[in-house]
Amino acid sequence: MNQYCVATYRSYDDKADFQKKAQSIAVGLTVGSWTDLPEAQKKQMEQHLGQVVKVEVHEPLALQPGERYADITIAYPDINFSKDIPALLVTVFGKLSMDGKIKLLDLQFSDDFAASFAGPKFGLAGIREQLQVYDRPLLMSIFKSVVGHDLTNLQEQFYKQALGGVDFIKDDEILFENPLTPIEKRVAACIDMARRSESETGQKLIYFTNITGPTSQLIEQAKRAIDAGANGLLFNVLAYGYDALHELSSHQDIQVPIAAHPALAGAYYPSPHYGIAAPLLLGKLMRLAGADLVLFPSPYGSVVMPKQENLAVQEALLAPLHHLKQSVPVPSAGIHPGIVPLLMQDFGEDVVINAGGGIHGHPLGTSAGGQAFRQAIDAVKNGLTLQAATENAGNESLKVAIETWGIKQ
Amino acid sequence: MNQYCVATYRSYDDKADFQKKAQSIAVGLTVGSWTDLPEAQKKQMEQHLGQVVKVEVHEPLALQPGERYADITIAYPDINFSKDIPALLVTVFGKLSMDGKIKLLDLQFSDDFAASFAGPKFGLAGIREQLQVYDRPLLMSIFKSVVGHDLTNLQEQFYKQALGGVDFIKDDEILFENPLTPIEKRVAACIDMARRSESETGQKLIYFTNITGPTSQLIEQAKRAIDAGANGLLFNVLAYGYDALHELSSHQDIQVPIAAHPALAGAYYPSPHYGIAAPLLLGKLMRLAGADLVLFPSPYGSVVMPKQENLAVQEALLAPLHHLKQSVPVPSAGIHPGIVPLLMQDFGEDVVINAGGGIHGHPLGTSAGGQAFRQAIDAVKNGLTLQAATENAGNESLKVAIETWGIKQ
Repeated sequence: MNQYCVATYRSYDDKADFQKKAQSIAVGLTVGSWTDLPEAQKKQMEQHLGQVVKVEVHEPLALQPGERYADITIAYPDINFSKDIPALLVTVFGKLSMDGKIKLLDLQFSDDFAASFAGPKFGLAGIREQLQVYDRPLLMSIFKSVVGHDLTNLQEQFYKQALGGVDFIKDDEILFENPLTPIEKRVAACIDMARRSESETGQKLIYFTNITGPTSQLIEQAKRAIDAGANGLLFNVLAYGYDALHELSSHQDIQVPIAAHPALAGAYYPSPHYGIAAPLLLGKLMRLAGADLVLFPSPYGSVVMPKQENLAVQEALLAPLHHLKQSVPVPSAGIHPGIVPLLMQDFGEDVVINAGGGIHGHPLGTSAGGQAFRQAIDAVKNGLTLQAATENAGNESLKVAIETWGIKQ
Repeated sequence: MNQYCVATYRSYDDKADFQKKAQSIAVGLTVGSWTDLPEAQKKQMEQHLGQVVKVEVHEPLALQPGERYADITIAYPDINFSKDIPALLVTVFGKLSMDGKIKLLDLQFSDDFAASFAGPKFGLAGIREQLQVYDRPLLMSIFKSVVGHDLTNLQEQFYKQALGGVDFIKDDEILFENPLTPIEKRVAACIDMARRSESETGQKLIYFTNITGPTSQLIEQAKRAIDAGANGLLFNVLAYGYDALHELSSHQDIQVPIAAHPALAGAYYPSPHYGIAAPLLLGKLMRLAGADLVLFPSPYGSVVMPKQENLAVQEALLAPLHHLKQSVPVPSAGIHPGIVPLLMQDFGEDVVINAGGGIHGHPLGTSAGGQAFRQAIDAVKNGLTLQAATENAGNESLKVAIETWGIKQ
């Protein structure tokens, strides 16, 4: 039986016949022409023909002016494209992306299409198992500054972060191959600090090192990093395309989790009229391509994404989706310990709390910054308000953090 | 001496201090922090520090309300990133793309950065030499329908197009590996028709066959196509990233021109507030990455790009740019013979006239469709109006085309 991948678009037009437009998409992006085909050929071509699934027209109300648009859903036969993300995207939104005001909102993958993807190798459950942490949000720390710093400096930064009790430390996404901190030496130096810290605190830690450079050498670079001790990879997916992530994540020699960075995502998702919606761009497609963790702009910082969109990204990463493991959501930017109760209320426990300035900017230093987050998480887990928790003498780091940043309601 | 790549952005904000914002970009996307660095460290870090080059604030006029924005130009030290397009884009627009209403307008490459790119292997001059056509716009034809058609059908379509006197025939960008027309058999079948047609008409022809599938196998696939006789490649660049194009175009075994398809470009360029401007997205970056031809939406069809933006794309492809050869502009969609005089007025002769429906939809058939374009080009070259040219008995194809589509002024 025919299988279909299904795309939903929002198309804006003051007066278009959206039914007709939908029909023209379904035909134009598949068999090219239909009504003028001889009947005999129609029979053979029918398996290649796109199908209009739904057209929901939103007319602006007289008393509440707005734009006229339609949500159009089209099913594309799997038989028309190879089972890779570039082929799917080029089919459903290649030419169409340039056809007026239109945004790609969602994709549903057919069972056959999804079956070509292993998805995240570890996913939420696998990551928790690696870290032996099952009952709280995970905590990630970002280097303060990396460009222009040498190995000794990075090691020092790493060690201080690790001592704070974080579960993950990630490279800055703008750290590329450079003479000061080349990847193999950087990995060795940082993993050394992770071991040292673990021997002192018992805390396991995954270090996501940034895989960069020429496309054809990404897998080799990842293997070299892993040989040097890397236990996690960071990848700027959108600069290389989803298929490059898929190839990294599905490679048999790459047995470490991959964190997807959203660099360049703002070129696609924020416009209401154009581009690709965040829950698809940073949610479903990242998960299909095999990201174990996905970073995206939190609703709390200056780099914002509306909360509703944030929660839709989260859902795309966690909700049941074919056979795919769950990717861990990492809402990022503007995170300090005083946000933890709100963040856990919004995202629950299956989330990574990711901080840079909120850790390094702690008046008592980087390690206290990490500790403050862990204390905030414990407080919420124990049903305490942060205010109440600061009265506990052991929670000095949290107390100072709250004095510095306050509590966000 | 330090070299810099320079990015220009348009940033929208009702009340921001744009000078401050520019400063924060220059520091934030390079060394991370500056003012709180010890003086001794500043000296060492200065070579890594971004520089604000220019901030032009556009205040809306009281009598002519509009949005408040600034064009901000920042110089990024080459030393901070590796010499590849993903590193440059992630540096200048990775995180920043998600920071409110901001669009990347332009990039200027340093000499050092540009020196890492060979650019188009053939370019305009090399393509003209291959075709032995020096004194007129080139003509490209697109298959009418490809999905679901078999080799015999494609061969037939190809031969009819070739007989019409076109210089190029390109695959549809949605033609992927499939059992009916696998790439090696497709190339052999089509190139066979190209030879047959050339023996009859003397007209040389480049066939751009679509390179698709897994990222790591693109080069192998291109080589197999070339071994089967391919003399041109089509590539959906934005589905794979610019670096994949760079690797194809700079490979020693790939000695055929590459045409860049703009599939997915509409996800980036049309919004005034977000994304990457078309002259950079489809102009400079495609040329730097090595596209010999670049397709982009023409200002004449339903898939439109404003003419000013079109001409800016053209300029980015043709104007002097370091050592890079010129990429040939291919404004596409909505092209019929009656548009030729306007198109040549807008774009001159160093352009590809690219038609699908304007060739296959000709009442006398596909070959007459190609001939009508050649006759229209000859007319303009000879200083004739199309109307006058139709009076020449030899121009029957043009006459019918004009009766069908009219003349666009």
